[in-house]
Amino acid sequence: MSDVPRLRRALFGRTASLVSTARSRRPLSTSAPRSQAPCPFCEGNESETEKEVFAHRRAGTAPDTPGWSLRVVPNKFPALLEGIRLPSVEHGPFDEAPAAGLHEVIIETQEHDRTPSRSTTAQLATLLTIYRDRLAVLSARPGVQSVVVIRNEGREAGASQPHPHSQVLALPMVHPRLADELRAANHHFEAEGRCLTCDMIRHELDGGRRIIAENDAFIAVASFAPRFPYELWIVPRTHGHDFKALGAIEIDRCAEILRQVLEALDSHLGAFPYNLVLLTSPVSGAGSAGESDVERSFHWRLELLPRITTPSGLELGCDVFIVSVSPEDAAAALRPLAKP
Amino acid sequence: MSDVPRLRRALFGRTASLVSTARSRRPLSTSAPRSQAPCPFCEGNESETEKEVFAHRRAGTAPDTPGWSLRVVPNKFPALLEGIRLPSVEHGPFDEAPAAGLHEVIIETQEHDRTPSRSTTAQLATLLTIYRDRLAVLSARPGVQSVVVIRNEGREAGASQPHPHSQVLALPMVHPRLADELRAANHHFEAEGRCLTCDMIRHELDGGRRIIAENDAFIAVASFAPRFPYELWIVPRTHGHDFKALGAIEIDRCAEILRQVLEALDSHLGAFPYNLVLLTSPVSGAGSAGESDVERSFHWRLELLPRITTPSGLELGCDVFIVSVSPEDAAAALRPLAKP
Repeated sequence: MSDVPRLRRALFGRTASLVSTARSRRPLSTSAPRSQAPCPFCEGNESETEKEVFAHRRAGTAPDTPGWSLRVVPNKFPALLEGIRLPSVEHGPFDEAPAAGLHEVIIETQEHDRTPSRSTTAQLATLLTIYRDRLAVLSARPGVQSVVVIRNEGREAGASQPHPHSQVLALPMVHPRLADELRAANHHFEAEGRCLTCDMIRHELDGGRRIIAENDAFIAVASFAPRFPYELWIVPRTHGHDFKALGAIEIDRCAEILRQVLEALDSHLGAFPYNLVLLTSPVSGAGSAGESDVERSFHWRLELLPRITTPSGLELGCDVFIVSVSPEDAAAALRPLAKP
Repeated sequence: MSDVPRLRRALFGRTASLVSTARSRRPLSTSAPRSQAPCPFCEGNESETEKEVFAHRRAGTAPDTPGWSLRVVPNKFPALLEGIRLPSVEHGPFDEAPAAGLHEVIIETQEHDRTPSRSTTAQLATLLTIYRDRLAVLSARPGVQSVVVIRNEGREAGASQPHPHSQVLALPMVHPRLADELRAANHHFEAEGRCLTCDMIRHELDGGRRIIAENDAFIAVASFAPRFPYELWIVPRTHGHDFKALGAIEIDRCAEILRQVLEALDSHLGAFPYNLVLLTSPVSGAGSAGESDVERSFHWRLELLPRITTPSGLELGCDVFIVSVSPEDAAAALRPLAKP
């Protein structure tokens, strides 16, 4: 099989696979000290990455040289490639397409050890601004139907490099989880005339038992039906389907609550592995849902998934997740630790 | 919150959570030598488990004493409990129910180190026979809508104890993954007049590129769209929806092919963590699908999921799984190692 990455639908249609054999050549950072295994994301090692497509740099410094505080580069071992064709297509009951798309890495800082839970609100606002801007850039590329931003912190969360970085993936489809949510959100809107997430926010603010933090623009809430202990969502209080539409003030408020919950989790759990996922609306016109359906029924959010437990056969075989810390207990533990 | 386990639907309906705070008291086997931390599943430690509900024993030995070669016991830290009521029910947009059901442990052998990849075909046939029989017993309990058998091998696959054991969970719903598969299978049957899995088997046998092993009753095939490298399915060649209906000869043939693939994986990967999942039809009359729909369109299978990679934010946030070993390469590597 050639190295062209392939996008395959599971036989029963739920999940998708990116079969990307080139990624098997990806180096995994060992636990060896940094001096033995140079970090490809550190200042001075710019030649270890692809050429930067965006950076925050000191005036007068050249691209792909030192002098930056943030870089965006194409992933050196991408799971998606622009403009590819497949040499053959599977027949029979199977669904296969070229994994056409983009896969970028945001190197968040030149500081090797400055993880988000050690960052200021201003630093997190800078990061969220880049998320917004890369979403806008990649959403405009031909063939892209959804863009996701993810952040993997720690080996147990699937990170291959410890240097603070995020990833942006532009996919040639509305990804399966987003498609499911759009369907459910639209179904609720048709039945009730209201956004499901807006209904959730009202209910959560009424009860208060799962609220972890709030400000005038956002709430952070322990997920009612979590997949992992301490799983939480950050959602805008006012309905909004599109993270790209955020202004500077909203981004500051979002950064503020993100810092609060990261600090709270860090105080309660110690350094902890996690995934951060930005679920926002698909690219305009993508998929089968009408544009106005998406605008009125879908509500973007940030999901924070602490990876302090290991999914077992029940989780993977049945999509049933056992959690031994209730969301109510999680919120009660984190609430006093989430300081403005 | 009380210790009554709760079954919650995710807000957008895809996954379910078993919130079971009692399980937080579950001991996790440390990596300390066995002499320091006695294994609750070893012979002589029967008092460490709940009272056995079934066993293979030497004649004349009493229940819950030494002299057994296999025991079935209720899980000491169950994620589901029979006959429970909830003190309160969540309102608003949420869906919560008591996690009413059963959660059993099959202690597969008295030999602490005899994992399935070190077992004979006859030993695996004994295990699969117990799977079938516990499925039959638990499917007959009131309120049970689906029963799943899982096996977690290794810490990275979510196992809390190294002693060989499987788990049987009887759930008060058709579990989410099964519900999805029933829908897709039924949809395919209505469109094509054939079972989707039967179509897949025909296609795979024609092409042969993903076949790992076969005998007169079963094939083992690398999953076309895997979630993990080397993921494989064992499926009966002849249409069958219900694992409970298997006879002794079919069980022997299934055990034979299971032994072949476990040995092949073990030769290729070394000792490897994995989940084994038995996906069989729901309890008669459960869910919304008609009985004849399930019989004709659903096809049971065993899934083997090697846990040699860690799902990241992309997998958990989007249900998109990156795999760096193609199923075709996986099958080519395993096929010569799968010996009759």
